[in-house]
Amino acid sequence: MKAAIIGGGVIGGGWAARFLLNGWDVAVFDPDPEAERKIGEVIANARRSLPALYDKALPPEGTLSFHTDMAEAVKGAGWVQESIPERLDLKHNILGQLSEMVPEDTVIGSSTSGFKPSELTANGARAIVAHPFNPVYLLPLIELVGNPETTGKAAEILRSIGMAPLTVRKEIDAHIADRFLEAVWREALWLVKDGIATTEEIDEAIKMGFGIRWAQMGLFETYRVAGGEAGMKHFMAQFGPALKWPWTKLMDVPEFTDELVDLIAGQSDTQSGHLSIRELERLRDDNLVGMMRALKKTGTGAGGVIQRHEAGLPAPEAKDLPITGDRQIPVSWTDYNGHMNETHYLEAGSLATDEFMQLIGADASYIASGKSYFTIESHVRYLSELHAGEQLTIQTQVLNGKGKKLHLFHFLYGADGTLAATVETLLLHVDLTTRASSLPDPEVQEKLESFHTAHEPLGLPNGAGRFVGQRA
Amino acid sequence: MKAAIIGGGVIGGGWAARFLLNGWDVAVFDPDPEAERKIGEVIANARRSLPALYDKALPPEGTLSFHTDMAEAVKGAGWVQESIPERLDLKHNILGQLSEMVPEDTVIGSSTSGFKPSELTANGARAIVAHPFNPVYLLPLIELVGNPETTGKAAEILRSIGMAPLTVRKEIDAHIADRFLEAVWREALWLVKDGIATTEEIDEAIKMGFGIRWAQMGLFETYRVAGGEAGMKHFMAQFGPALKWPWTKLMDVPEFTDELVDLIAGQSDTQSGHLSIRELERLRDDNLVGMMRALKKTGTGAGGVIQRHEAGLPAPEAKDLPITGDRQIPVSWTDYNGHMNETHYLEAGSLATDEFMQLIGADASYIASGKSYFTIESHVRYLSELHAGEQLTIQTQVLNGKGKKLHLFHFLYGADGTLAATVETLLLHVDLTTRASSLPDPEVQEKLESFHTAHEPLGLPNGAGRFVGQRA
Repeated sequence: MKAAIIGGGVIGGGWAARFLLNGWDVAVFDPDPEAERKIGEVIANARRSLPALYDKALPPEGTLSFHTDMAEAVKGAGWVQESIPERLDLKHNILGQLSEMVPEDTVIGSSTSGFKPSELTANGARAIVAHPFNPVYLLPLIELVGNPETTGKAAEILRSIGMAPLTVRKEIDAHIADRFLEAVWREALWLVKDGIATTEEIDEAIKMGFGIRWAQMGLFETYRVAGGEAGMKHFMAQFGPALKWPWTKLMDVPEFTDELVDLIAGQSDTQSGHLSIRELERLRDDNLVGMMRALKKTGTGAGGVIQRHEAGLPAPEAKDLPITGDRQIPVSWTDYNGHMNETHYLEAGSLATDEFMQLIGADASYIASGKSYFTIESHVRYLSELHAGEQLTIQTQVLNGKGKKLHLFHFLYGADGTLAATVETLLLHVDLTTRASSLPDPEVQEKLESFHTAHEPLGLPNGAGRFVGQRA
Repeated sequence: MKAAIIGGGVIGGGWAARFLLNGWDVAVFDPDPEAERKIGEVIANARRSLPALYDKALPPEGTLSFHTDMAEAVKGAGWVQESIPERLDLKHNILGQLSEMVPEDTVIGSSTSGFKPSELTANGARAIVAHPFNPVYLLPLIELVGNPETTGKAAEILRSIGMAPLTVRKEIDAHIADRFLEAVWREALWLVKDGIATTEEIDEAIKMGFGIRWAQMGLFETYRVAGGEAGMKHFMAQFGPALKWPWTKLMDVPEFTDELVDLIAGQSDTQSGHLSIRELERLRDDNLVGMMRALKKTGTGAGGVIQRHEAGLPAPEAKDLPITGDRQIPVSWTDYNGHMNETHYLEAGSLATDEFMQLIGADASYIASGKSYFTIESHVRYLSELHAGEQLTIQTQVLNGKGKKLHLFHFLYGADGTLAATVETLLLHVDLTTRASSLPDPEVQEKLESFHTAHEPLGLPNGAGRFVGQRA
């Protein structure tokens, strides 16, 4: 699978990273001599954050290439994404050329923030709106507008690279999300211009209140809850009258003068000037990863998108021992010592146990039937430091699988194949109703014993059966 | 400290919970016979989520009382908060009465979404705007508007209960955040009315894109980053022209008809009707707690507020052994078996180790000076199940503190005093530059040895020195 990215920059680079890290080859066309450096920086950001959303490895990265000839860049591409500046004449020119170059079944997407498909294709060009949000490699939303057959096909591809396509029912200027952003932006410019609040105070007002609310429920669901037991109609009756009140400046937009630009840019420097754009980007990405991992626990919003994408990622093939973990270490797993925190060695081991339970059929439906394994004892040896962004692979040996017992020994390997830790763990099979130990179902028992039989000749691994502080 | 809550409901209840769980006594006045039940439900939600933001215990809860006499409710209160319906005549009546009842130095706050202080106090009443966001017990933002002396005092009190006061420079209808919400609301009503998107699609557009972005950076900082290396001026130049484009419907608001209400309420039922309001609230709270705990790692936005509040919470007093943990178990620490996941037993132990390091002076500044302890081995025994919302207390015994070694044994106790787990852990002192083991500073060594000497007569605790699967 190959994607062609027409126009680098922050948005084109984000698209490139999203495809590349999901195993697509990516060809970039951008006449800017700085394009390779700029896209390289976006991809570097993506490499340290996108895989960290998942507890499984993404497919191997595709190949990235840069081209000075657009026809060469798009050759064989299944998706061509245009992310050039927001000028209709430029878009007509490029989209027109692309439509001639690529076959009918290649999706031509435009990252336009505001133009409608009818405007983009007025010159006969073939294109749909595929409007992303920055950072494209982390935020799942893509607004699709245009030909239903093409948007349908595009939606399928986008889901396969972990995104959340939203097909807009009728075309409208600025699609959906940017209409909200524009309304908030206009209102914010007034507040700064009128001296009601600075840029920093406005940002505080957003992130300390409704911003964090909107990360997991949108406007309507939030208000449904705010309406309390009386529900949505009650909420609307309560706030309906406000529609007539001067609670926003709305259409009356401030004059876009140099003074206003200086005022805003100056306040923005005061607010954030102590951090470089690169530092801000990384802070933003670390926060997004942390929050999206939190949402993944409940499957809400962007967390649900990650859950579904992860479920479809291929399991690594077993070698001598089953591979029960293959993942990148998220920044949020590190601590003040600049390495992976001790807790997350056990978390990785615990996820490996879950993965092993899947292998013997003690999976979600087994647990739903009222049976599971509870851990009663664990022992972790920390053998070498692991760092954010590093690949971690886990293999598991069964030390005992008789009766109620599940005695596992996980080997945690760092990126260079060094044994970074071992996690030894003993679980007992339980009846979830009585919370007392019980025998597993025969099918589970059988699979477990066959692992045990296969692993028994390996003998006790080095470090098994240790107590804390024992001499090597 | 006592707060009086005038008007129950979702907002008044949220205020009550926020004060109560921060150790204030709370007196509620609300003529609604259902007030006690309603506020009880809000407080139940707060008890399972607010303390879960912290890795330390909040102060003991204050006393909650309900009153049918307003004068009795406000007696001795340092803060009186009015959260009655949004009608100016009602507000005048109540704020007027309150101003007669309480002394000058009592803060009288109004939860009004829209009225300006000059409107609220037109009848001579004393009051400031103290506008919260639902759920008040979790979201830190409070907009303060009015008399600078009172808002200054109010800000100090709000910080002491873990909130983030934002003082608005000049009064304006709907303060700051609600102006944005109103703009988005008006735009959203248009989109639904015009059939561009359903309520569910609009919510998707928000939470999959800019919603999650705004939880951690606001509008301006996000755009600063989007501007890339060229910065805020570049961003403004790029989007300045859009101010003249029809990217929002703005002042032209849809007619508030029954049809519109039915359309919105019907779509909202389709979207969220499978969950009760109570279930939605708990899902929202679990998500907010998870995301706010993620933001706490980097100290961003609401996470910074929690960090600062937590730093000021009093440490529990040592008993026979030092208390190195005292906290509530967050929902996000539980798993598919309906109890605390094995990983978080070790996380609690790891935080207890951090706390013990503080006690011997191996604190943040010690680590900044290039010295720290690294864990080399840990052993966890899981003795009983722990559940979300349960209080967890940890005590720590020093098994060895000689030379480079720090050998600790943590006892984890559940709410009823049962020993729920033990975590035995061995750390080595390291030089953070060479990453090799080294001797601690003499001051640290001395404090550590005095703990060791004091704990030595206790002997090896039951379960220390065990290997996995050893018979009891």
